[in-house]
Amino acid sequence: MNGAVVITGGAGCIGSDLAETLVKRGENVVLFDNLSSGKMEHIESLLECPNCRFIQADLLDIQAVQSAMRGAETVFHLAANPDIRFEKGDATDKDLRQNTMATYHVLEAMRRERVARIIFSSTSAVYGMSDGRAIPEDFPTRPVSLYGATKLGCEGLICAFQHLFGLQAWIFRFANIVGRKTRAKGRTVISDFIAKLEADPRRLEILGDGKQAKSYLLSRECVDAMLFAVAEAPSGLNILNLGCDDQVTVEEIARRVVARMGLHDVEFIYSGGETGWLGDVPRFLLDVTAINRLGWRATVNSAQAVETAIGEILESRGRGSAGQGGPCKR
Amino acid sequence: MNGAVVITGGAGCIGSDLAETLVKRGENVVLFDNLSSGKMEHIESLLECPNCRFIQADLLDIQAVQSAMRGAETVFHLAANPDIRFEKGDATDKDLRQNTMATYHVLEAMRRERVARIIFSSTSAVYGMSDGRAIPEDFPTRPVSLYGATKLGCEGLICAFQHLFGLQAWIFRFANIVGRKTRAKGRTVISDFIAKLEADPRRLEILGDGKQAKSYLLSRECVDAMLFAVAEAPSGLNILNLGCDDQVTVEEIARRVVARMGLHDVEFIYSGGETGWLGDVPRFLLDVTAINRLGWRATVNSAQAVETAIGEILESRGRGSAGQGGPCKR
Repeated sequence: MNGAVVITGGAGCIGSDLAETLVKRGENVVLFDNLSSGKMEHIESLLECPNCRFIQADLLDIQAVQSAMRGAETVFHLAANPDIRFEKGDATDKDLRQNTMATYHVLEAMRRERVARIIFSSTSAVYGMSDGRAIPEDFPTRPVSLYGATKLGCEGLICAFQHLFGLQAWIFRFANIVGRKTRAKGRTVISDFIAKLEADPRRLEILGDGKQAKSYLLSRECVDAMLFAVAEAPSGLNILNLGCDDQVTVEEIARRVVARMGLHDVEFIYSGGETGWLGDVPRFLLDVTAINRLGWRATVNSAQAVETAIGEILESRGRGSAGQGGPCKR
Repeated sequence: MNGAVVITGGAGCIGSDLAETLVKRGENVVLFDNLSSGKMEHIESLLECPNCRFIQADLLDIQAVQSAMRGAETVFHLAANPDIRFEKGDATDKDLRQNTMATYHVLEAMRRERVARIIFSSTSAVYGMSDGRAIPEDFPTRPVSLYGATKLGCEGLICAFQHLFGLQAWIFRFANIVGRKTRAKGRTVISDFIAKLEADPRRLEILGDGKQAKSYLLSRECVDAMLFAVAEAPSGLNILNLGCDDQVTVEEIARRVVARMGLHDVEFIYSGGETGWLGDVPRFLLDVTAINRLGWRATVNSAQAVETAIGEILESRGRGSAGQGGPCKR
C-alpha cells in the first residue's frame, strides 16, 4: 500500500492483529480507537514502532476522524459496537450511533480527504434467520438484531459512497471471529464460558438450548483473508462472506472449554429456548464459495478455531498480558 | 383499524391521498408533517373533518413523535427526504438524518407507546443497478444513491424492531409514484418538464440521454395497494415491490408533456450520459408478482399513469389549488 493505513477499532481484537501484520510489513499505520472496548495492552508493543501511531478519539467526532484520514490511502473500518446482544433496558440507538453514524463519519471524512479505499467489517447478522442452508452473498438481508440492522445501514452507505464518489470498497460479512484477545465488552461465547467457570467450576449456564450452531474463524485468519481479498479482488465494490464452511454448537464449545480447563462433572444449566438472546440467529452457515474461488480458504475449521482460541485465551489469562514481544519490521 | 392512524409525511402527495381515503372511511387520522416538502393546501379540506388532526413537527424531535403516537394503532411512515438526486455541494448526511434517523425515531416512539403496526414507504432505489430484468424482492440490495442507501438502513431497522419488539410491518418498495400534486421539493420528472416548458416552450433540457426507462404508479393506486396489502398480508414482516410491470422512457414522458401542453417543434436538448444524475438508476423494472398474487394489480400501466398525472398536474395548475372539495365521511 502506498499511503498510510488507518484502522478504526485499532485497539480491538481484529484491529490490533491486523495492525501487527501491517506494521511488520513496514506500512504506516494509524490506529484510531476510543478504547470503549479496545485495550491499550493490545497495541502497546506496536506503538514502540516508528511506523505506528495511535489516536484516541471517537468516530462520532467527525473532526477527529477527518484529521486521522489526512494523507491516508486505505481505511480498515473495524470499529463498532461489539455487543450484538440486546438486553432489556439497553438504549435502542446504541448500534445506530456506533455503527451507522460512525460509518457515515468515516465515509464522509474519506470523501473530504480523498482517501480511496475502505475495507469494512460487516457481519453475517445482516442476513437474519436462514433455513439452515449455507447463505451466499446474494441472500436477502432481513436482520433480526439492531447490530445486524445497523451494519446493513453501513453497507448501504458504503455502496452509495462507493458509486457516487469513486471509492473502492470491500465489505466482509464475518462469521464469529475468535482469538486470544478478549474484549472488555461484548464477550464472545468462549470468554463468557471461561469467566463463568472461573467464578463457579461446578455449573455452567448456557444461554438457549445449547443447540445454536455457528461458524467460527480465528482473528489471524480473518486478517489474512482481508489482506488477500484486498489484493486479489479489485472490483469497485466487493461483498464477501468471510468464514469457514462448517459449524460448531454452543454445547460443544461448552464441553471443549470444560475439558481444556481440566474440569469434571460440570452441570450444564440451559436458559432454554431456541435462541441465546433477543436478536440471536441460532443457526447460521455462510457460503464461502466466493472467497474460496478467489483463492483464499480458512486453514482450520470452526471446531479447530474454537479449540485454538480456548487454548490461547486460557494461556493469556495465565500469563497476564497477551502481548508477544516486538512486532516491528526492523 | 381500531386505534388512530398516524401518517408521517401526511401533507405530502401520497400521505394526503392516503389521509383522504382513511378520513372518508371514518378512521381517526393524525397527520404529522414538518411541511419541508408537504403542503398545507393538500390537507386543508381534510382538517375540517373532526376525525383528522395535524401536527406540524419534525421527526428528528423524538418527543413530538412520541406524543403523536400516543393511543395510535397503526403508523404509515411516508415522510422522507423526497429528493433522490444528489447534487454537488449537497450535504451528504441529509438522507441519513431524514430517512434513517427519522425512521429510528418513529420506531422507538412506537416501541415506547406500544403502537403495533408500521407501513413503510421504501423504494426501488434500495436495489441499485440491475441487469434489465424485472427485480424481485429477494434481489440483492446494492444502492447507488444516498437516498436508496438510507432507505435500506430504514428497512434494516424495521426488520430488527419487528423481530425484537413484536411489531407488524409492511415495507413497500415503491416504483416512481406520480399524481396531481406536485412537491415543493424533489420534483418528479413530469413537473420538472412542465416547469421548464412553461419557462421556455421552445426547448426542453432532458437529463441524461432520455433513454432512462422506469416504472410509474399513480399515487391513488399506491394508496389502494398499501391498504389492500395491509388487509391481506398478515405476516409479521412483509416486503413487497409496489408498481406495475412495464416502463416508460424519459424521452417518451417529454413527448407526452409537450403534446399535452399543445406545444410543437420543441427542441430536446440532452445533458448526455446514461444516467440523469449522480445516483440515478437509469433502467429499472420491478417484479410485482408477489403483490399481484396477493390479489392486487395496478389498473393502469406506466404510460397511462404518466399520461394521467400530466393531465392532472396541468389541470390543477390551471385551476390553482388541487383541492377537490370535502373528503369527510358524513
